[in-house]
Amino acid sequence: MRIDIITIFPEWFDGPLGTSLLGKADDDGTLDIRVHDLRDWTDDRHRSVDDAPYGGGAGMVMRADVWFRAAEAVWNDVEPTPEPRHEPGGDRPRTILPTPRGRTFDQELARELAAEERLVFCCGRYEGIDERVHEAVATDEVSIGDYVLLGGEVATAAILEAVVRLVPGVVGNEASPDDESFSHGLLEYPHYTRPAELAGLAVPDVLLSGNHARIEEWRRDQARQLTRRRRPDLDAPAD
Amino acid sequence: MRIDIITIFPEWFDGPLGTSLLGKADDDGTLDIRVHDLRDWTDDRHRSVDDAPYGGGAGMVMRADVWFRAAEAVWNDVEPTPEPRHEPGGDRPRTILPTPRGRTFDQELARELAAEERLVFCCGRYEGIDERVHEAVATDEVSIGDYVLLGGEVATAAILEAVVRLVPGVVGNEASPDDESFSHGLLEYPHYTRPAELAGLAVPDVLLSGNHARIEEWRRDQARQLTRRRRPDLDAPAD
Repeated sequence: MRIDIITIFPEWFDGPLGTSLLGKADDDGTLDIRVHDLRDWTDDRHRSVDDAPYGGGAGMVMRADVWFRAAEAVWNDVEPTPEPRHEPGGDRPRTILPTPRGRTFDQELARELAAEERLVFCCGRYEGIDERVHEAVATDEVSIGDYVLLGGEVATAAILEAVVRLVPGVVGNEASPDDESFSHGLLEYPHYTRPAELAGLAVPDVLLSGNHARIEEWRRDQARQLTRRRRPDLDAPAD
Repeated sequence: MRIDIITIFPEWFDGPLGTSLLGKADDDGTLDIRVHDLRDWTDDRHRSVDDAPYGGGAGMVMRADVWFRAAEAVWNDVEPTPEPRHEPGGDRPRTILPTPRGRTFDQELARELAAEERLVFCCGRYEGIDERVHEAVATDEVSIGDYVLLGGEVATAAILEAVVRLVPGVVGNEASPDDESFSHGLLEYPHYTRPAELAGLAVPDVLLSGNHARIEEWRRDQARQLTRRRRPDLDAPAD
């Protein structure tokens, strides 16, 4: 899967993309992740990406012209050019703009995006991005939750992690996407490892019993109880 | 505000904490952010933090004993010690464990956490963390949304951004927490900046009118319409 990220803070992604499974998948070619500096598409010597909002108000707004040029170049895989070109469109890859007003991201949308060959992420900063970028650049406005962030970078990292771990070849033995929270409408059951007792807290006997049928039943039961107690809205399947 | 993050990938946070407002607030003393390597509290020469799950199953589980020692040291501000001490508790600062089963994070919880003097974040990896860490270390299990991530780092970064931007002194003129999505049960109105026309897309006339009462009314109206269309569940206030 090819992934492009457009941001004014490319260095933000050094850690998140270099660490663990994501870094490995990028190195071994399962993923092709490219981070672009939005300022490469500015056309003034201050490399400005923002301007004051029409109609007044606090904060600065990211400029549509810079975003149009960046998106077009990334979609068509061409180098940044000082010559402004303002006609985005054509055969756009899935282009995601994280924003509080977007479709709420969930495991279903993660699975949908994991089937794409290309994803492009547009990270906003400041007070927001010019509305025309929402209209003409983004194919998907996505919200990772009902809270306000400092910018689109952390939302992009969250969507990316949830998506790429569903791409075949990315998650090896470290995790198992079929047996986890939300995959069957349930939260995951509790996990325990050694030591068997710690500060007066013991591992449940059943897990030490070696009886696999009972362990399986206990885990199913725990997952159902936890889901009903914590997330009645998830509608845990009946026993 | 003092913030401690415990993780096996401390370098993950270099970008997110060094960038923009967060880095500035850390530098100027508004925030005191410390990232700790969980492996500093291991007691074997392989520095292992995980072990096979009791009862069998895929993946590895993070060990409670290592987490107990780490949490205790961070809470009490003592250096890592090779001597195992297993008695967490006492006067714990707010200790957040990001997990899909936690309370769903939202702007209200962000405001609640922004009033704390200290926050501690515990970042899980692998299949999960031993249940006893959920019970005896975490004061808050928090979920940033209904999707599964590779680890707690990106969730910690999201919670942190949403929280610290509400801490007085962190957000200067870059944004205005009172006039944004979710602060009045509404999504935010659309923003525009120059150029006034781009690729056939024009800025709405009203924003160029200079009539502040009409602009104000248009923005309120747009925010209401957008909220009703996109998020009927947010229950936009009546006109």
